[in-house]
Amino acid sequence: MKELAAVSGLPVATIKYYLREGLLPAGRPTSATQAEYDDTHVERLRLIRTLREVGELPIARIEAVIRTLDGPAMPLADLLGEAHHGLGPEPGPATPALDDARRSVLAFVAARGWRVDPDAPAVDLLAESLHALRGHWDVADLGAEMFTDYARAAEEIAAHELATVDPSRGPSDTVRQVIVGTVVFERALVALRRLAQEHFCHVRFDVPPPGDGTTGG
Amino acid sequence: MKELAAVSGLPVATIKYYLREGLLPAGRPTSATQAEYDDTHVERLRLIRTLREVGELPIARIEAVIRTLDGPAMPLADLLGEAHHGLGPEPGPATPALDDARRSVLAFVAARGWRVDPDAPAVDLLAESLHALRGHWDVADLGAEMFTDYARAAEEIAAHELATVDPSRGPSDTVRQVIVGTVVFERALVALRRLAQEHFCHVRFDVPPPGDGTTGG
Repeated sequence: MKELAAVSGLPVATIKYYLREGLLPAGRPTSATQAEYDDTHVERLRLIRTLREVGELPIARIEAVIRTLDGPAMPLADLLGEAHHGLGPEPGPATPALDDARRSVLAFVAARGWRVDPDAPAVDLLAESLHALRGHWDVADLGAEMFTDYARAAEEIAAHELATVDPSRGPSDTVRQVIVGTVVFERALVALRRLAQEHFCHVRFDVPPPGDGTTGG
Repeated sequence: MKELAAVSGLPVATIKYYLREGLLPAGRPTSATQAEYDDTHVERLRLIRTLREVGELPIARIEAVIRTLDGPAMPLADLLGEAHHGLGPEPGPATPALDDARRSVLAFVAARGWRVDPDAPAVDLLAESLHALRGHWDVADLGAEMFTDYARAAEEIAAHELATVDPSRGPSDTVRQVIVGTVVFERALVALRRLAQEHFCHVRFDVPPPGDGTTGG
């Protein structure tokens, strides 16, 4: 157990909690107070850690992913879907205006030929963005087609990302890879877009950057 | 005042609070208990509302933007920078490992020729992503060049976005336009990337979508 804690970088108390919750299978007992753990335990702890720390998934969602992993063999896409949807957010209360935005989003996604679960949290996220823009610009029938340029950029990025997923490393590792990819690169993309906006803001309005008298690239 | 509340969609109490805080200039008094407000008041309330509701900026940051707007004429890029940086997040405590990631990010940004403030919150966001990937993959000297594909996508998106900003509508409106664009389209982009990932996950692992027996797009 001490060794498992050292290898996984998790406190013993946390590992015991995962054992109690059934997230981690019990070790092979070697005495009344000792048990042997192997690579499958280390791998499982790495998966839980990624889902918790990187994906910030609640324990209930992590349990669902683990149950799916430990259950009868199922398509990898479904397992990834379970983990991916776990990233949330939980949809807010439905309103007629949000429902209308949602319908526009689903029609847009279908028109692009995307195969997505209509209950994916990202559908709600996109509907909320559309709803916010409709309110902000006071255009009630603004359609999701306005996201076309962004959808094209998202397609390019995602196609490239999924091409790098290596399923030969096993379902547990593949889930980790997809969650890390989704969450960490999402933050990176958001940061890069803001930096690029700042750059083009300077380019467009032709002002040298703060603390620098020269004009850059 | 009642009219101002109706036009802006804000409660009278909120408007009074903004008046007390100096975010909204006083109206022209017409009697002991009445004052006249004009379009500049309506416009100012719209700006505050966007910064609060869309940008989720704290009042202190909103005050900074307003002070900049009401102060001596300054380059639009600086005003936009003030509002943009207000979106945060506040950087977490510095550590040597994070500092190292930060240096790699700044070198990467400089190599792309981007003109950005080294203290922009997005620099810290990107450094945190790099730091997370270094830890997760156990590659301590992973460089920010790994974000190149994402930076290229961000560049295309931001160049297009900044080209649509119309500064002839005045600084207050331009700030609103940039904040709405940054925040709402950021959420939309995140949602679209997740949906595109789900789609390519199905394409890659060749499984029909849930509740559908046919193969899509």
